[in-house]
Amino acid sequence: MTDRRPDAQEPAAPVPASAVPRFEVEADVVVVGQGAAGGCASIEAARAGAEVLVLERMSLGGGATALSTGLTYFGGGTRIQRACGFDDPVEAMHAYVRLAAGSQPDEERVRLYCEGSVEHFEWFCSLGVEWNASFHDDKVTHPLSADGLLYTGNEEVWPFCEQARPAPRGHKPAREGEAGGYLMEAVLRATAASGARVVNDCHVQRLVQAPDRRVVGVAARLDGREVFVGARRGVILAAGGFVMNRDMLARHAPALLHINTPTGTPGDDGRGIRMGMGAGGEAENMGEGLLLNSWYPPSSHLMGILVDARGQRFVNEDASIGRTSDAIVAKADARAWLVVDDAIYGQTQARHRIAAVEESFEALEAALGIPDGALVRTIEAYNRAAEKGEDPLFHKARPWLRPLQAPPYAALDCSPARSVWGGFTLGGLRTRATGEVQDPDGREIPGLYAAGRNAAGLCREGRSYASGLSIGDASFFGRLAGRSAAGVPHG
Amino acid sequence: MTDRRPDAQEPAAPVPASAVPRFEVEADVVVVGQGAAGGCASIEAARAGAEVLVLERMSLGGGATALSTGLTYFGGGTRIQRACGFDDPVEAMHAYVRLAAGSQPDEERVRLYCEGSVEHFEWFCSLGVEWNASFHDDKVTHPLSADGLLYTGNEEVWPFCEQARPAPRGHKPAREGEAGGYLMEAVLRATAASGARVVNDCHVQRLVQAPDRRVVGVAARLDGREVFVGARRGVILAAGGFVMNRDMLARHAPALLHINTPTGTPGDDGRGIRMGMGAGGEAENMGEGLLLNSWYPPSSHLMGILVDARGQRFVNEDASIGRTSDAIVAKADARAWLVVDDAIYGQTQARHRIAAVEESFEALEAALGIPDGALVRTIEAYNRAAEKGEDPLFHKARPWLRPLQAPPYAALDCSPARSVWGGFTLGGLRTRATGEVQDPDGREIPGLYAAGRNAAGLCREGRSYASGLSIGDASFFGRLAGRSAAGVPHG
Repeated sequence: MTDRRPDAQEPAAPVPASAVPRFEVEADVVVVGQGAAGGCASIEAARAGAEVLVLERMSLGGGATALSTGLTYFGGGTRIQRACGFDDPVEAMHAYVRLAAGSQPDEERVRLYCEGSVEHFEWFCSLGVEWNASFHDDKVTHPLSADGLLYTGNEEVWPFCEQARPAPRGHKPAREGEAGGYLMEAVLRATAASGARVVNDCHVQRLVQAPDRRVVGVAARLDGREVFVGARRGVILAAGGFVMNRDMLARHAPALLHINTPTGTPGDDGRGIRMGMGAGGEAENMGEGLLLNSWYPPSSHLMGILVDARGQRFVNEDASIGRTSDAIVAKADARAWLVVDDAIYGQTQARHRIAAVEESFEALEAALGIPDGALVRTIEAYNRAAEKGEDPLFHKARPWLRPLQAPPYAALDCSPARSVWGGFTLGGLRTRATGEVQDPDGREIPGLYAAGRNAAGLCREGRSYASGLSIGDASFFGRLAGRSAAGVPHG
Repeated sequence: MTDRRPDAQEPAAPVPASAVPRFEVEADVVVVGQGAAGGCASIEAARAGAEVLVLERMSLGGGATALSTGLTYFGGGTRIQRACGFDDPVEAMHAYVRLAAGSQPDEERVRLYCEGSVEHFEWFCSLGVEWNASFHDDKVTHPLSADGLLYTGNEEVWPFCEQARPAPRGHKPAREGEAGGYLMEAVLRATAASGARVVNDCHVQRLVQAPDRRVVGVAARLDGREVFVGARRGVILAAGGFVMNRDMLARHAPALLHINTPTGTPGDDGRGIRMGMGAGGEAENMGEGLLLNSWYPPSSHLMGILVDARGQRFVNEDASIGRTSDAIVAKADARAWLVVDDAIYGQTQARHRIAAVEESFEALEAALGIPDGALVRTIEAYNRAAEKGEDPLFHKARPWLRPLQAPPYAALDCSPARSVWGGFTLGGLRTRATGEVQDPDGREIPGLYAAGRNAAGLCREGRSYASGLSIGDASFFGRLAGRSAAGVPHG
């Protein structure tokens, strides 16, 4: 099937139920999208006894998760954590995830996620996903080894490390390279086994809504025509964020326009969120998202310093790249370089351009157009403290503290205008943790659920994000939404 | 009239027209709120021949404007500008306002506002508002003199001054002290004269919406009971922003939670925006707002330096306080001090606390807990350059460049946690420049208009804001919305 009209011209406002001649197909639960959120929701809804119909826009499900490394954030003492020798009480995970959730954490989501994490991990195992009991002891942003466990956020990074006991919680499935496809294959297999029916190449474009606001179905394009699908119990929106929609970014999250290599699928055009808004749902946290500039690995780059156009440092370089990338935009006005010496220099996967290579700090400063001895002062002060294993200004951790030494010195351009910037949106529909979409008064829209990036979820700010929290959030709260839509009582 | 139930418990979702027994009152145009936006909208709608009913929640209209200095942003060659000797071609104003509008300016709004500014100024004069032809040649944030003209934004500030020819465009009505009440009295008089009918103590709580999405009226609480008011042509939402609603701030604009002394009235609870969302309107730019920490006047403070907890500067201190306050939060992690010497020190209106007074820079650094000689390095470098009349790092303008000289030296605490922070929201309903509220597809909600802080307006980011742009935006686009609702063709 090919969409004949561009998405931007298709209205996302709901179809009044009275305008629907008849539903050609019906199910108890209709799931829009088969990424991690929709996939896990479908399985749970079907296992709870509901007749489930999954409508997936692409020819094969998987969503953004299938394109990813498959990193998922589990903790509280998973089998892999224990086998690798890490003790991670639920309380420690809770303390950290609450920080990672951002400045306004949703306490209910944080609690449910942490208390349910070991069960959720075992649930994935029960789908046939395997994880190696090996710890990857290096700083990476996009892990390609088959090791099962690694640090993926700011667990060991100041100030987080002072407020929550660190443990590695990024779990990568037991496959080399990008393991998201492997993860999603298991979800798709389990969906098929659950009895849920999946229709591919089916683009849901509008909700169908009754006068009492209940969502009773969807309108979709299938085989070149509009099809009405009825949902007896509910519709679950799980169609991804809006990083592919530049107009929505400009109107809701202008800082995310720095993303030049969006992390997602073409389906991440915000339609799911817009459909929910059209039905009366409130979109919230829409200005927030994750920015990703991978200026390491090599992890030796963490021994370098990030400086702005004033020659000043502005962040602890050992923070997650979500945090350093946010700082490059918010604090350094989207213009920053990584300064390294010859010994620690390496080419990044993102192939950052070398802005200057010089034999002295003075010459590097001049080559970058940094005025007034500012870069030299910064480096000298950094070096003096690093010599003592200290970073009094930004508290970079000891393993990465080492003075910049023998020339040549290089500056790698990390600016969004001149390097690869990924990222995605974190805003979405306001929902209860159990998936019910809420209006601006906090009241539920009957029959409407959302999960994954269609919802404002667990982690609400890129600057505190830890990799694995999106798949973790989408899959965990997708499961809850699936049970809610199927009518299973929570509690 | 007293509201019996707290606002948070009242739903803002629309009442279906079918549920309204009858409209007790009807008018062509119903205006919700009588601040600058609603007031100006009412006048224009009534003058265009519409029967207008203004429903104002408070016992007297005026809104946040009545509490303000009355500063309004006009330019392009007003009589006051010319009389004070300033040449300000429309093109110069356009170049600046486009920058002040933020990183994603609405080109149509910018153009209309600048091209119509002289007429808009004369319109206010025609209501009886007087302005003195005197230029206030000092940096102030809250002007109390009766001078008619002053700089209120970043017109002379780097980098704006390099991209647009500066001219003062803040116009203050000819009254000492806070002149916003005087300004609004003129608007209220003109409203009465226009034939528009005003009902006070009337709290509009819900829109009434027909099945075709047309907004056909409102439900309001008046004299302790619910009253349905019909609107034959349209409803204009002009009920203010959401700075008083901490729940909405947390969910949409967490950075604005630093505001501890909101700039607005108790009515700025976001209900107008929520009513519009409930009717299918999209709220946009909801994460943005203005933060205001008045660490000057005295303008001598501009000769001091703002430093963060790393002892680093992070903004040109001569920028508007909207810009420096944003920088304190976004760049300095909400912790900053103004460092002054004895000669330039003065008490601020906001009575900033003195965090430390010392006889040397070293002692000041230690007293503030800034590590590692960082503050001393910053001051020494600043002083060396200022001696030459330069600020190579942040380009503070020459009049404010003077080395910090004889002790004692003081640090004034500008942190949100320990000083007065005002501000308000800039996000709101997506509307055309002419006031029509739009849904997430950009389609109009028939019969629904918004202006002032109920709409996402002209200036979209606090960091580029110029004082006077809110009253300017509310009044100018309020007038357009009034004409639109009355059915006057634009163009």
